[in-house]
Amino acid sequence: MPLYYEDFQAGQQWELGQYQLSEESIIKFARKFDPQYFHIDPVKAKDSIYGGLVASNWQTMAIYMKLIVEGLISRSVSLGSPGIDEIRFFEPVRPGDTLQVRYMVTECRTSNSRPTVGIVHFKGEVYNQAQEPVASVAGTGFFGRKPPEDI
Amino acid sequence: MPLYYEDFQAGQQWELGQYQLSEESIIKFARKFDPQYFHIDPVKAKDSIYGGLVASNWQTMAIYMKLIVEGLISRSVSLGSPGIDEIRFFEPVRPGDTLQVRYMVTECRTSNSRPTVGIVHFKGEVYNQAQEPVASVAGTGFFGRKPPEDI
Repeated sequence: MPLYYEDFQAGQQWELGQYQLSEESIIKFARKFDPQYFHIDPVKAKDSIYGGLVASNWQTMAIYMKLIVEGLISRSVSLGSPGIDEIRFFEPVRPGDTLQVRYMVTECRTSNSRPTVGIVHFKGEVYNQAQEPVASVAGTGFFGRKPPEDI
Repeated sequence: MPLYYEDFQAGQQWELGQYQLSEESIIKFARKFDPQYFHIDPVKAKDSIYGGLVASNWQTMAIYMKLIVEGLISRSVSLGSPGIDEIRFFEPVRPGDTLQVRYMVTECRTSNSRPTVGIVHFKGEVYNQAQEPVASVAGTGFFGRKPPEDI
């Protein structure tokens, strides 16, 4: 049975996945999407404000999505997202770091305009193996409502 | 001469780059980071709310970053970003779409705590070849201030 809107409630919390980044994967992603020198050149990166190679924030966000899709969304009747309300970046992500996500439901409400859709507000926290927060994401997801016969 | 904080001012606007997505690139990105069926399976995607394969929103964001880095940030003294204040998703991105970015400076101010850093608030709009908006991003970037002898 997949997770419907009715299966979410404010206060729920999940600890999702683990994803380790290699230097190679950081460079590969950044060459394609974020070719700043502190993401693609380990030697020059030593002279940057980060003191070494760091991952593109957008790679951190893509990994955040991967962990949420694998751990939660793939088991749900997800109907997409209208957007993100806030992203904050804290500690940089470095080669060898292992990321996890804490996903919390902050508010649930039904859609006024679409009776088959439920709206879930959430906050996701990405943290590393030292339990340091590296990013937080607040946003909104749409989920299908449970068919009446199943309630 | 790179762009320093002093080279940015509210109201400036840039049209940045072009990036065409193939079906293959959509599937490849999504298999790695966002393996929902409407991002990775062109046949099943026909039965989704999108009526066909669509790109992961996070791929759209990664492409947004690429166009900004190549068109603007690589020419500037960029000192990273504390975060994003809002992302909104409008039209889905489909195979063959070509994306562009309109990047607008909304506010500039100097840092109180770090005299060598300037803070630039911006809004980026991602749109497709039909001039339809597909996403918008409001956020903040840090830029180095021009050394006194150069002002």
